[in-house]
Amino acid sequence: MDKRFVTFLPAGVKVEVESGTDLLTAASKADIEIKAPCGGDGTCGKCAVQLKSGTAKARRDSHLATRLAEKGLNLACQTLVQDEDLVVEIPKTSAMSQHQVLVENNTLGGVSDALSNYLLHVWQLKELLLEKQESPLNGYPLNPLCRRIRLTLPAANLQDNRDDLNRLTMALRKETKCTDINVPLPVIRNLGETLRAEHFKVTVLLSEVGGKAEVIAVEPGHGHQPLYGIAVDIGTTTVVAYLLDLEKGRVVDTAGTHNRQARFGDDVISRIVYAVDEPDGLKTVHQSIIDTINTLIADLLVKQRHVKETDIRVLLTAGNTTMAHLFLGINPKYIRLEPYIPTANFFPVVKAQELGLRVHADALVFSYPSVASYVGGDIVSGTLFTDMGNAEAPVSLLIDIGTNGEMVLGAGDWLVTCSCSAGPAFEGSGITFGMRAMHGAIERLEIDAQTYEVSYTTINNGKPIGICGSGLIDCLAKLRCTGIIDRAGKFQTSLSTPRMRVGEAGPEFVLAWQEDTDLDRDVIISEADVKNLLRAKGAVFAGIRTLLNVVGFELDSIENIYVAGGFGNYLNIPDAIAIGLLPDIPVEKYKYVGNTSAKGACIALLSQEAWTEANDLAGKMTYIELSVGNLFMDEFVSSLFIPHTDLTLFPNVSL
Amino acid sequence: MDKRFVTFLPAGVKVEVESGTDLLTAASKADIEIKAPCGGDGTCGKCAVQLKSGTAKARRDSHLATRLAEKGLNLACQTLVQDEDLVVEIPKTSAMSQHQVLVENNTLGGVSDALSNYLLHVWQLKELLLEKQESPLNGYPLNPLCRRIRLTLPAANLQDNRDDLNRLTMALRKETKCTDINVPLPVIRNLGETLRAEHFKVTVLLSEVGGKAEVIAVEPGHGHQPLYGIAVDIGTTTVVAYLLDLEKGRVVDTAGTHNRQARFGDDVISRIVYAVDEPDGLKTVHQSIIDTINTLIADLLVKQRHVKETDIRVLLTAGNTTMAHLFLGINPKYIRLEPYIPTANFFPVVKAQELGLRVHADALVFSYPSVASYVGGDIVSGTLFTDMGNAEAPVSLLIDIGTNGEMVLGAGDWLVTCSCSAGPAFEGSGITFGMRAMHGAIERLEIDAQTYEVSYTTINNGKPIGICGSGLIDCLAKLRCTGIIDRAGKFQTSLSTPRMRVGEAGPEFVLAWQEDTDLDRDVIISEADVKNLLRAKGAVFAGIRTLLNVVGFELDSIENIYVAGGFGNYLNIPDAIAIGLLPDIPVEKYKYVGNTSAKGACIALLSQEAWTEANDLAGKMTYIELSVGNLFMDEFVSSLFIPHTDLTLFPNVSL
Repeated sequence: MDKRFVTFLPAGVKVEVESGTDLLTAASKADIEIKAPCGGDGTCGKCAVQLKSGTAKARRDSHLATRLAEKGLNLACQTLVQDEDLVVEIPKTSAMSQHQVLVENNTLGGVSDALSNYLLHVWQLKELLLEKQESPLNGYPLNPLCRRIRLTLPAANLQDNRDDLNRLTMALRKETKCTDINVPLPVIRNLGETLRAEHFKVTVLLSEVGGKAEVIAVEPGHGHQPLYGIAVDIGTTTVVAYLLDLEKGRVVDTAGTHNRQARFGDDVISRIVYAVDEPDGLKTVHQSIIDTINTLIADLLVKQRHVKETDIRVLLTAGNTTMAHLFLGINPKYIRLEPYIPTANFFPVVKAQELGLRVHADALVFSYPSVASYVGGDIVSGTLFTDMGNAEAPVSLLIDIGTNGEMVLGAGDWLVTCSCSAGPAFEGSGITFGMRAMHGAIERLEIDAQTYEVSYTTINNGKPIGICGSGLIDCLAKLRCTGIIDRAGKFQTSLSTPRMRVGEAGPEFVLAWQEDTDLDRDVIISEADVKNLLRAKGAVFAGIRTLLNVVGFELDSIENIYVAGGFGNYLNIPDAIAIGLLPDIPVEKYKYVGNTSAKGACIALLSQEAWTEANDLAGKMTYIELSVGNLFMDEFVSSLFIPHTDLTLFPNVSL
Repeated sequence: MDKRFVTFLPAGVKVEVESGTDLLTAASKADIEIKAPCGGDGTCGKCAVQLKSGTAKARRDSHLATRLAEKGLNLACQTLVQDEDLVVEIPKTSAMSQHQVLVENNTLGGVSDALSNYLLHVWQLKELLLEKQESPLNGYPLNPLCRRIRLTLPAANLQDNRDDLNRLTMALRKETKCTDINVPLPVIRNLGETLRAEHFKVTVLLSEVGGKAEVIAVEPGHGHQPLYGIAVDIGTTTVVAYLLDLEKGRVVDTAGTHNRQARFGDDVISRIVYAVDEPDGLKTVHQSIIDTINTLIADLLVKQRHVKETDIRVLLTAGNTTMAHLFLGINPKYIRLEPYIPTANFFPVVKAQELGLRVHADALVFSYPSVASYVGGDIVSGTLFTDMGNAEAPVSLLIDIGTNGEMVLGAGDWLVTCSCSAGPAFEGSGITFGMRAMHGAIERLEIDAQTYEVSYTTINNGKPIGICGSGLIDCLAKLRCTGIIDRAGKFQTSLSTPRMRVGEAGPEFVLAWQEDTDLDRDVIISEADVKNLLRAKGAVFAGIRTLLNVVGFELDSIENIYVAGGFGNYLNIPDAIAIGLLPDIPVEKYKYVGNTSAKGACIALLSQEAWTEANDLAGKMTYIELSVGNLFMDEFVSSLFIPHTDLTLFPNVSL
């Protein structure tokens, strides 16, 4: 087929593609990531680009394409390279990251991309990453999922002529109390030489879980070889890896990047659709997360040059159920189809080489167990971290707001959990100027009750280009308390301020004027945006009420609310209560717990006891399917007001 | 490097090799097998060939080479191709098999070699192969190591929303009573689709051993797909494969060939030396047995065209400890070094693809457990077959005479076992005209007490070219009873017969005159040969006495003697007693049991109960190391006479 060149601006990166290729794919080939929340379906409009030179062809006509064309923009995913070379400008609003910033530092070959992503996302990630000095064990004993046992075996002789394998396993039984010890063939193959190299002194690398042990390697002598593990939090958006020194029990370094699966869509549903519907879709999406993790591993190894790939003997991941399926290459099809059945909630331990992970080939890979299709290992990991499963724990609620609002309510012996489809509004999706918590996002916001003038702070103090989750919650609270919207979210269009106006899609309120932004237009919030936010907050609150209802508790029974997830630290709790997102209980009962998924992964990797507990937790969590019965739907409808139809639930919220 | 052609006669096969290649290697490249019991060390002299055209270079000078050169012969292993093309004649005595016979039938491509080997060896193998109609179960229930379980699972719905894997394993637990069920990742990956393809009706392929189950595959529906397994007897010399219909519990077909490892030496010691000392030796020797088995599988599939490679879901091998190590690619080094420690006696179950076996990639491969370095899975398999481990079994002796004489003595609860280095004399090695039981081998022999004339029968009634194990035992008995040798094996050189003469290596007796043979010389047995045979028979008898001694029994306590192994059926028991090889107990207590290793392998493959019993047997057999203490050595020295120094042990043998 014919080949054409596409040059992407402002990065100035040129890539050769076959004619017929769409610009989203071309950009991906050039390692330039364009936003594509809908996964290239041509429906979200986030991938708009500007054709500076050459002519291209639209895949098909659409209302959205026509509207963008009026502004001189094309949907990258729907625009196909034809007979001419092209020059394409990517507006800031469409770029997922700004590669051009880092081109100058392009000295590390294959690793540079990882590093640049890391640097770009460093702000976004910094609160996801554990402090290096922090002891991550949270009270569990240091007893990692892979540990060294130094043995001095009785030497073989004519009187004691047991075979080598028996000699080893008998000693291991004594040392571990495990009776079920598996020694895989590759370890057995040279065991004779290994035992004799240092006169029957050996060091065994062993993984011991639930009374069963797996020998990972046997090495001669009692040396002090390094022993590392990697814990990975596989988020739908962001993937963070922690390099752990398993013998010292501490985090050595961390690295994070965006999940490369983003080009198949922002949310798990788009990823599932891609995996199921596209040819080789599952393979592609699976490989994509493996590549993401390999990039992070390479990044960690570059930063910690004394650590070798082969020093990493174990890996543990935590992620939602879809991420776990895709990571292991398990078909996720039925996760999104009623009755929403995952293929597996407990996943087998596999070897790194089976997945192509660039650590020691025989390293074991553990995956956090899930509870249901929409309550995954990230939530189980978080539950472990909060210690909610502890017999003496008071009634507590763990809540993680992302695309879904996942929550766990419980006290020691009992734990109920559910997931409500909050939608990705708090992640910026479906909101006109919604964006992730990145440079230029409005994160805090005040509105003057008299003048309706807006003051805001943005991430990195950049000129505003959009508004992120914490900003949206602030915004909703402020719109309400200044009377700009009513309790149902309807705009008071009669207000005498130029900020209130009627736009293309109905009433809207200007948050930042164009001249103050880094954009070619005003940053606004529309009535449609507010309705979306109300549905999102309503779903979360209805979920909490449903769980309480199932176990017969009231809101005021809750002693602790653990707020987890990406925007936990930036959430303004009083505002979140004011809009009816979170229960009206004393603020001091709220605890920001940050990226509990990652923290729980580190703990489990460092402690067999924690890993056993995590598996027990997953087994004992009762999943409440909200689509069964009317309970949730009734609660949801009542929650579509600010703060709620039933004001007695929010005695401290002033209207 | 320079290339030269070598043409091998009488086959007329031409092969191109690099100059510097030895003729043994060149022949192997041409798929022509030359005898090389010493593994190409230049010490056994069996690979003598005649250079018909061209000149070559000797690797080094040796006494043996000089002696052969006088006869116009060269050692193939020590003769290197130089600057000229060569024509090399392989004498019948040096050829391992006669490929030229089958060249005309060369229509099956890659399979022809397997088939031709099969046909060539068919005589040798016929008693190793089970009759197709015979039920191989020997009283054990039909419950194969891989079986199908047909399940109808409750369909998933919002009320019963367990994950697919849980749904499956819960049903399997109920069906199998196993609580430890492993479902490997490749099976899980598409489980969702598999369960739903036929509305939650599935067929599970499962292997269930000792309370643990491994799922091999899950298939949609309740179809009747074929289900086959292969049992392989890996002999040092001969490898035999049995294709078993696992659901009908019968042998469908059999195939056998020589072990391709033969080119690294005839016995296990040469193979170990090659594996340990040569670069990539272990890999080469390992691959060689895998190739041998793959050849047999291909052969079986050609003969049974309705069976597909992927229908074969399980494989079970039985072989001696060295064969088991080499089959699995385990370094066998310490088997031959005091204190003779095998790396493993119990071997892990692996997948066919790990070994490169050409059956279903996920087929499980079981290996019979061994007891010690020189008491292997073949003996455990034989013990299972004889039912000696049964609680009601009387005192019995299982004896398998090959290179080593392996034996098991026991009754139900107790079993003692040992291996005596009989040497390969009964397999023809170390005997001037010794040979395996192949075309032209003398297998029965009479000597006239007056005239000393010899009459014999040969295998296939061919002209004699040597003498095989059963012939050698006959020969020794007849030499003694005619007074040609005395009780110590010394030749009575004063006898007036031209058959008695003094040859190059001392006194010898002519068994067949050159004109009656297919050779260019007389077939003789020398005094040195007789001494070798006495050492061999003495070692076996001393082994039996030592075992009895250990448990405090006498010869007449033995109720059954099971004679196993390749030459069992052709052994003349009265002659074997007469020379003092076997105990002097009533002939009716002897039972020929043939290839018990193969039979025990088939039983275990068809019955989990048998496999469990086999593993129990291996665990409870007490190995007696004959090199510890003086017991064996004292017995051995007393056994170097015909029949023994202590004639009271042989009351029925007339001198």
